Amino acid sequence: MRKIISLHPLRGSIIHLSPPQILALGFLVFIIIGTVLLKTPIATEVPISWLDALFTATSAITVTGLVVVDTGNAFTIFGELVIMTLMQIGGLGLMTFSVLILMMLRKKVGLHQRKLTQESLSLNETSLGGLLRLVKLLFIFSISIEAIAFLLLTIRWVPEFGWEQGLHQSLFHSISAFNNAGFSLWSDSLSSFVGDPIINVVITGLFITGGLGFTVLVDIWDKKGFQKLSLHSKLMIVGTLSINIVALFTLFVLEYSNPATIGNLPLMDKLWGSYFQAVTPRTAGFNSLDIAEMTVPSILVLMMLMFIGAGSGSTGSGIKVTTFIVMILATLSYLRGKNETTAFDRTIKPHVILRALSIMIISILVIFVAVFILSITEKAPFLVIVFEVISAFGTVGLSMGLTGDLTSFGKCVIIIMMFIGRIGPLTLAFVFARQRKKSSIRYPAEDVFTG
Amino acid sequence: MRKIISLHPLRGSIIHLSPPQILALGFLVFIIIGTVLLKTPIATEVPISWLDALFTATSAITVTGLVVVDTGNAFTIFGELVIMTLMQIGGLGLMTFSVLILMMLRKKVGLHQRKLTQESLSLNETSLGGLLRLVKLLFIFSISIEAIAFLLLTIRWVPEFGWEQGLHQSLFHSISAFNNAGFSLWSDSLSSFVGDPIINVVITGLFITGGLGFTVLVDIWDKKGFQKLSLHSKLMIVGTLSINIVALFTLFVLEYSNPATIGNLPLMDKLWGSYFQAVTPRTAGFNSLDIAEMTVPSILVLMMLMFIGAGSGSTGSGIKVTTFIVMILATLSYLRGKNETTAFDRTIKPHVILRALSIMIISILVIFVAVFILSITEKAPFLVIVFEVISAFGTVGLSMGLTGDLTSFGKCVIIIMMFIGRIGPLTLAFVFARQRKKSSIRYPAEDVFTG
Ligand SMILES: [K+]
Ligand SMILES: [K+]
Repeated sequence: MRKIISLHPLRGSIIHLSPPQILALGFLVFIIIGTVLLKTPIATEVPISWLDALFTATSAITVTGLVVVDTGNAFTIFGELVIMTLMQIGGLGLMTFSVLILMMLRKKVGLHQRKLTQESLSLNETSLGGLLRLVKLLFIFSISIEAIAFLLLTIRWVPEFGWEQGLHQSLFHSISAFNNAGFSLWSDSLSSFVGDPIINVVITGLFITGGLGFTVLVDIWDKKGFQKLSLHSKLMIVGTLSINIVALFTLFVLEYSNPATIGNLPLMDKLWGSYFQAVTPRTAGFNSLDIAEMTVPSILVLMMLMFIGAGSGSTGSGIKVTTFIVMILATLSYLRGKNETTAFDRTIKPHVILRALSIMIISILVIFVAVFILSITEKAPFLVIVFEVISAFGTVGLSMGLTGDLTSFGKCVIIIMMFIGRIGPLTLAFVFARQRKKSSIRYPAEDVFTG
Repeated sequence: MRKIISLHPLRGSIIHLSPPQILALGFLVFIIIGTVLLKTPIATEVPISWLDALFTATSAITVTGLVVVDTGNAFTIFGELVIMTLMQIGGLGLMTFSVLILMMLRKKVGLHQRKLTQESLSLNETSLGGLLRLVKLLFIFSISIEAIAFLLLTIRWVPEFGWEQGLHQSLFHSISAFNNAGFSLWSDSLSSFVGDPIINVVITGLFITGGLGFTVLVDIWDKKGFQKLSLHSKLMIVGTLSINIVALFTLFVLEYSNPATIGNLPLMDKLWGSYFQAVTPRTAGFNSLDIAEMTVPSILVLMMLMFIGAGSGSTGSGIKVTTFIVMILATLSYLRGKNETTAFDRTIKPHVILRALSIMIISILVIFVAVFILSITEKAPFLVIVFEVISAFGTVGLSMGLTGDLTSFGKCVIIIMMFIGRIGPLTLAFVFARQRKKSSIRYPAEDVFTG
């Protein structure tokens, strides 16, 4: 997976970079371009600092949605266009980019390397024809879904805000939602629409679809019927549904009598509010309730959901739903004394379990280090700091209110966390990991007692 | 490992229990006996509630050291004797008990089952002669080490407190320290001796030795020289040393200018204080500084250390040092593209990695659930709750002060956490897990994308 490949952007010059390094570099380039554009006077109503421009650009390209300036008021139409473009590139570009890398790889490296790369980027296709079809499908899907959502939102918002504002809001929010970006032009996100069925259904429909992952969408498109789907798609669909239902029920119970959230709302609005907050942490980041006012157990549930995140190769981040499921399944198999981990009559390979373990360990270490640093630099309750870090790592964008109060140093930490969260903890590790020369020495096995 | 075995306590009656169930049941029996004894009027100066008796008995047998009543003032000499006996049974009895189970198993089940059981209980010996030797060694070791420590402590404490008090304190603390129990007769634990070299060296020497695990001690005793040690012993020794050094350095830096802990102490005392607090979270639980006054990043370090815990088959708990190391090594191997995880020229088997993963996942889930419940029932900052839960789970006994303020419901949660922590998350799971009939169906492997 970290096989060195050669790119020839100019004949004669050869850059040696591994795919993870290309991915990380690609994001860095877009962050720099975005920062410069957002710093130009025509992007903002009142000038913002370089750090705030960097923060906003990173938040947009990593589709996080944490904000240090009020998006709706601080930026001009040009600034908003920059943010929209960054969100679109960050959400979908990553996938297209993956496909492009695969296409480049095709001519340079053998089948073995291609398979490894393709697997690390969550695609099932290696033929050039198949890849071109995927890129085409990707664009058609995204634009169609965003277009339909845009139309539905205009039906709701044009009558309320008039043509200009209505179209403007509908376009921005449909792009932001499908790409799981979580940016909103309202400073209280979607709190005004807590009980609004159209907004709830359209916005959550967008980000849940985007969060399933492109491979799952193509799989659903190609095959008709659940039984014919790939194991990955089955796990994603069942996992997403189960997690959402459990979260909805839990939040509904925990917030039922909390007057600061859904306590004083009619029953239907209580349900809509619980539903929206249950699905948004993975990893959309809009909110229709005041997160800081939720009860501590609810906050814990949100943190767990943000950590799990969305699907592999999707517009969302986190450790990924499948990583979570694979670890749970591996644990259950171990407890039942089974030699293999299985699901839907298929065996999950040991190296998949090992990858899930690696992702989990690296994620926990990264989050721990960030919380550790922020607990030194920031004056905020521990819960608020942990919440902010997990939100950045999962590129979620929910906040208990710390983002606006961050010190400059704290902003840098959160910027790094959003970056790591989006490229993925494993990609990050691969950027720095050096492949050892394959050793032919075989060591004898010896037992170690654990637990 | 969950093979059903038959015990014949009375001819004719057959009880079908798996070793994990026997272990859990054993602890339950001692908890009940301890509770009743501590509830008797001769055990306490002033009567305590049944719940507080239960809490104290559980805390003692699980060698945790969290206290809801002040041990030094609330209990009579008889009460203290009960606590000392429970600590000794809880710390060492567990190991003896393991050996006894192994001896019983020898006649009932085959080599395969014995190997599985022995492995789950962290012993390397299966022959009857070898096991008897182990039991003997276990007793000789414990009593010798405790006796030497007792003498050293009397040298320090008899001149200060007189014969009666001095002997009394020395006996109680040497038993409490070797068994990693963390109970102290002083309400501020060992805070009066923060800069005292003898107390620091003797007490930490006791609990570090106890925390290495009996197998490691026997291994060191049998073989002379580091190279000849088993992989398990090597990992334990190197791991314990590394973790302690890193923790010492980190706490020293973080607390250096904190006036509420070591800020106003002379340099040597600063070092002793940092050293003691660095080694006590795994999983002794004495303290020589006020934990609640430490800085938040230090608290985070303590929580990490408490979670990691001590050695397998030792007087300490937590996920265990080797579990932590195995997961780090597996992650590094994966990142380097190696097919096998190796350490000290030995291969770590895949099932060992899978067990480590299972322990980690179950531990995180158990801690999450407990924090979740306490965040509903207790009025305390999030950090304080998380700290208390991890301390109970790791049977550490450090507290930021919540223990005394716990609601009755909260006390029950902490009692359950101490119990789970001591029998181990995996044993707990095995108590409830049902072994599936070995299936001969082999499913085809299919890839799942994670991360
Ligand atoms: K987001
Ligand atoms: K303890």
